[in-house]
Amino acid sequence: MVTPTSVRTVDLRSDTVTKPTESMRSAMAKAEVDDDVLGSDPTAMRLEKEMAEIAGKEAAMFVPSGTMANLISVLIHCDERGSEVILGDDSHIHIYENGGVSSLGGVHPRTVKNEEDGTMVIGSIEAAVRGPKGDLHHPVTKLICLENTQANRGGRCLPVEYIDKVGEFAKKHGLKLHIDGARIFNASVALGVPVKRIVQAADSVSICLSEGIGAPVGSVIVGSKEFITKARWLRKTLGGGMRQVGVLCAAALVALNENVPKLGDDHKKAKILAEGLNRIERFRVNVAAVETNIIYVDIPEDPKFGAEDACKSLEDVGVLVLPQATFRIRIVLHHQISDVDVEYVLSCFEKMF
Amino acid sequence: MVTPTSVRTVDLRSDTVTKPTESMRSAMAKAEVDDDVLGSDPTAMRLEKEMAEIAGKEAAMFVPSGTMANLISVLIHCDERGSEVILGDDSHIHIYENGGVSSLGGVHPRTVKNEEDGTMVIGSIEAAVRGPKGDLHHPVTKLICLENTQANRGGRCLPVEYIDKVGEFAKKHGLKLHIDGARIFNASVALGVPVKRIVQAADSVSICLSEGIGAPVGSVIVGSKEFITKARWLRKTLGGGMRQVGVLCAAALVALNENVPKLGDDHKKAKILAEGLNRIERFRVNVAAVETNIIYVDIPEDPKFGAEDACKSLEDVGVLVLPQATFRIRIVLHHQISDVDVEYVLSCFEKMF
Amino acid sequence: MVTPTSVRTVDLRSDTVTKPTESMRSAMAKAEVDDDVLGSDPTAMRLEKEMAEIAGKEAAMFVPSGTMANLISVLIHCDERGSEVILGDDSHIHIYENGGVSSLGGVHPRTVKNEEDGTMVIGSIEAAVRGPKGDLHHPVTKLICLENTQANRGGRCLPVEYIDKVGEFAKKHGLKLHIDGARIFNASVALGVPVKRIVQAADSVSICLSEGIGAPVGSVIVGSKEFITKARWLRKTLGGGMRQVGVLCAAALVALNENVPKLGDDHKKAKILAEGLNRIERFRVNVAAVETNIIYVDIPEDPKFGAEDACKSLEDVGVLVLPQATFRIRIVLHHQISDVDVEYVLSCFEKMF
Amino acid sequence: MVTPTSVRTVDLRSDTVTKPTESMRSAMAKAEVDDDVLGSDPTAMRLEKEMAEIAGKEAAMFVPSGTMANLISVLIHCDERGSEVILGDDSHIHIYENGGVSSLGGVHPRTVKNEEDGTMVIGSIEAAVRGPKGDLHHPVTKLICLENTQANRGGRCLPVEYIDKVGEFAKKHGLKLHIDGARIFNASVALGVPVKRIVQAADSVSICLSEGIGAPVGSVIVGSKEFITKARWLRKTLGGGMRQVGVLCAAALVALNENVPKLGDDHKKAKILAEGLNRIERFRVNVAAVETNIIYVDIPEDPKFGAEDACKSLEDVGVLVLPQATFRIRIVLHHQISDVDVEYVLSCFEKMF
Repeated sequence: MVTPTSVRTVDLRSDTVTKPTESMRSAMAKAEVDDDVLGSDPTAMRLEKEMAEIAGKEAAMFVPSGTMANLISVLIHCDERGSEVILGDDSHIHIYENGGVSSLGGVHPRTVKNEEDGTMVIGSIEAAVRGPKGDLHHPVTKLICLENTQANRGGRCLPVEYIDKVGEFAKKHGLKLHIDGARIFNASVALGVPVKRIVQAADSVSICLSEGIGAPVGSVIVGSKEFITKARWLRKTLGGGMRQVGVLCAAALVALNENVPKLGDDHKKAKILAEGLNRIERFRVNVAAVETNIIYVDIPEDPKFGAEDACKSLEDVGVLVLPQATFRIRIVLHHQISDVDVEYVLSCFEKMF
Repeated sequence: MVTPTSVRTVDLRSDTVTKPTESMRSAMAKAEVDDDVLGSDPTAMRLEKEMAEIAGKEAAMFVPSGTMANLISVLIHCDERGSEVILGDDSHIHIYENGGVSSLGGVHPRTVKNEEDGTMVIGSIEAAVRGPKGDLHHPVTKLICLENTQANRGGRCLPVEYIDKVGEFAKKHGLKLHIDGARIFNASVALGVPVKRIVQAADSVSICLSEGIGAPVGSVIVGSKEFITKARWLRKTLGGGMRQVGVLCAAALVALNENVPKLGDDHKKAKILAEGLNRIERFRVNVAAVETNIIYVDIPEDPKFGAEDACKSLEDVGVLVLPQATFRIRIVLHHQISDVDVEYVLSCFEKMF
Repeated sequence: MVTPTSVRTVDLRSDTVTKPTESMRSAMAKAEVDDDVLGSDPTAMRLEKEMAEIAGKEAAMFVPSGTMANLISVLIHCDERGSEVILGDDSHIHIYENGGVSSLGGVHPRTVKNEEDGTMVIGSIEAAVRGPKGDLHHPVTKLICLENTQANRGGRCLPVEYIDKVGEFAKKHGLKLHIDGARIFNASVALGVPVKRIVQAADSVSICLSEGIGAPVGSVIVGSKEFITKARWLRKTLGGGMRQVGVLCAAALVALNENVPKLGDDHKKAKILAEGLNRIERFRVNVAAVETNIIYVDIPEDPKFGAEDACKSLEDVGVLVLPQATFRIRIVLHHQISDVDVEYVLSCFEKMF
Repeated sequence: MVTPTSVRTVDLRSDTVTKPTESMRSAMAKAEVDDDVLGSDPTAMRLEKEMAEIAGKEAAMFVPSGTMANLISVLIHCDERGSEVILGDDSHIHIYENGGVSSLGGVHPRTVKNEEDGTMVIGSIEAAVRGPKGDLHHPVTKLICLENTQANRGGRCLPVEYIDKVGEFAKKHGLKLHIDGARIFNASVALGVPVKRIVQAADSVSICLSEGIGAPVGSVIVGSKEFITKARWLRKTLGGGMRQVGVLCAAALVALNENVPKLGDDHKKAKILAEGLNRIERFRVNVAAVETNIIYVDIPEDPKFGAEDACKSLEDVGVLVLPQATFRIRIVLHHQISDVDVEYVLSCFEKMF
């Protein structure tokens, strides 16, 4: 059995921490490339074509990060001064992206409460919509953003029916629907529904290639051809246009092929770990809410020993995790975590305190 | 007794609808003025001095509207890119000012729930604060905004103790405190506390001269000298610098002298009207919540006859009011509403339906 | 004869310094008003109707200042992110309005050289136009701005033929044309051409009521109905919506009627003063360039006694003027300057040095 | 001899078109990496350390593009609302970066004429500076930007003495100095002066790793530690934070070592090609102005056959170049252009027309 004395490092801070695999490295070394700003890099084009197909949209564009993917999407849907976006009060865009939609784009965010399952009540969305004709006191709502899976709800999935309903609502009101699908592949695997079906109602989707599926760098935006044409201009403005970007896209293509099939395993390991942790008396995990690859562990509310302390203590035995709240730790599984790692982590938690 | 057949018009849409009185008109006609953009208009200076004293701050500046007063205040406290303001989710700045702080100023709004009494729970404010050092994912909180009286809570007053606590909290965290005091005179009269005591903890306050107290045009911002110096620059940028503005300030000085003493009467009439309406079986008014000059009247939830219909029906008999929600009407008292008007309005409501 | 020993004050700093006349004051005192934000103030409506007619456009809107008039106009024509405006490198909008179009509106200014007569060479405008399809590296030009009369060219007038040509050029390229017509009445009088003919090719015009024609406060924007509808929303966002604004509009209506006919006299006095100053050996005035009410006086290039010193020295004898450059003084005539004032100013310049 | 019938392709559109070399590909495949957003990627750190040393500054940061490098730099130096940047009217930042400093950052650009040699006359810069105290009508100048080598002046170098003088001027006025050093290595080689000496007076420099020196992707910003700390936050906001970015940095490190020494050859080839083209009667090249790796070829002003046509005609024989103006072609040399390529290009130009 693996014990805390070993020098093993298990990095569960995020699924962004994965290292490129040998096959990704080899693909990068061999990638056919060209200047993607001047003309088009063939490998970038190949990745974009594949991603558009996966998402069932007309076109796609590679960007350096999920933050840029969301920023570009929101700014294009809200391209006129005085636009408002409706989004979850605990959504990644609103909380973790530096307020870029306002700070850089002048878009006014109107938040609606994210329920425990990550959804926003449609009646609440309706109450928040303003315009289109608007009166003199209101911005004009242009966009609704959903997030699937929802990072700040422990990776819970939005059901397809819910997304469809929001999509219908958006259409009825002349609004656009963007999905922050950073971990949409996890949602797809967990729901057993193809990505293209999940995002069918969306006008645009941002999909991370670096989170769930472990490419070294990058996200992709998908949408209509017209949308992606505008997105290319805005990507250049933000400084996200990259030259021989095919080297990154080659790795991402490998990640798509090799790692999407492994997500089911990540979820299983997450479940096993969640159950194991929940069995330890002093920890609490809402096991039912562990739908994908993220686990929230609630620790005892000891004012002298909070989540930050627990994380430091675990770091000493090679288990890297991050605090989610004062007494809550977040654990993220990914394809470079083995069954033995899971066992080891459990044993470390058992020995903690 | 006054009856609905009379041609009387009672305008209760807002306290902004008051007409300038004879003494205001006479003051405008005689005002000593100069170019307030080039140098300084003597009447504007007099008003600004008086307002600074009333608010107990170093300096004051006249602006064309409360919206500009709030916009300038938020933008100056959040003058660096990547700033965040914490404000009520039902506050006037967030809901009724076109999202200007984001749209024009790039400031990211972080909302906290406005409770029934208009306050935000201090623990919730604390949870929303980010920075000062911040991490890479967060804007930096710079400012907290309160509103007193709270427009979207039927003109309820924030107690001085609460504001003081928020002020202490702000200081502790290196944040600024702005009060949207559009109707701060109403709060002062209702609480029986001088304005300067209410806003003691605030770094800046916007005070409307056109709402409660009936000047034809304008608001004032008060704050430190340094703050007002910056505000003058930003007012010019926004296009709020006015030349012989003393003509407006002269009227505002009259409003200060003549109408502040009348606010107590407005509140009494509001109470009488509220109680009268609540006695009519099909209407509901939370009389206890009528602390100043605003009344919310809940009408029966008849899908065929909502607040908009009720307002139209009242308009036919000369009573002008506005819908606040699907089945809620808002009534605002002011110094040009007489006891007879109140009686007349009651009789109109009685005959409605 | 008037001598420098008298206590006379002659304020030639700008035509914005005029005091409201008795008839303006009386009009303010009697003005019929209403809440111009909620509904519409009848006097504001009357002024807006009259101004729209004068300018030959569908609609008009009153704003607190020329800066706001220009800001709103540029922002509405450039309402999409990534818009560019072409304007004179010495234009008022670019130099004296705090960079608001960029700072608040995110509009990219592309300057073209203002020639000695205030025009921009059309070939240079053409070279600066980008888009409409644009490539990835360019903003998209949306708007050309002209200024008539040109403040920083001593109030010179743009000829109608020139404006027409720029208008044709703009149409051909799908661009809008805005004219900063702060002193368009001066241009109209000097050119002997009605305002509506001068601005025929423009999509929007800002017209100051406080400069040339001496109303206490305000400017007006004219344009299509659709444009003005958008402008009302943006005015509210900027905080330029005013309640019983009719009190200001009443004065502006008087200014229109009484002072436009006097502009010819201002121009004559300017010519007389310019010629007189030019006759004094040490001063140089390009008399031919004094087309309206502004005079530039070049003083000897004495490093110990520049324009600022000269202005101070003149102030001691009651003549208020402003430095335009290190060795250049600007003088602005207006309806409250008499023949005797002109004589007095001449005598003061003669005695200076 | 190589003739136009061969199938050779010579890509001279830009020095951004180079393909990664075998050694770069191998370095990417072996790069030691980590999550550069969460913690720090060791290869990124190594590149950043090396670049900081090369530039003689405290710290450095990798970004996806030169556009982002400049955008971040300008926005950090101009972090307060109402800031102005002085920059060349033909500078890359002003002309080719989508107006991002205004559009996204609200910074007001004030342009000064770029002379033939790329400099801006210091007296003209001085005339453009506004503030620091400023008056009510002006933005406040915060930053001067230079560009070395100057892209839109055919890659001409700014002399060190000139930069030093601008630096002194900036310090005297409390301004910052940023250098867009996309091709600073070319300037260094051409001037025979180390990069750190050239940029000694600068507060920040952006340096492209993809242009002159041929890395597949990326630029670096150098400056003080404090500046780079702020830059990391803004990079995240823009979406330029990348995860296992070490794969790109590894290639950049190879480019630094292998290709900087080759720049001298590029310049020699440029000179040879320039002289050869200038010898062909119908073409004109200002050979003396070919200081680095860029050549401007003026073609006959035939309205039926402009630069775009010439470029197409050359494309048919495998020579890829871009039009710079109606009758001017731009040619850019780089390390993947051989002597034989140069000969071939010359022969193609000879046969054209």
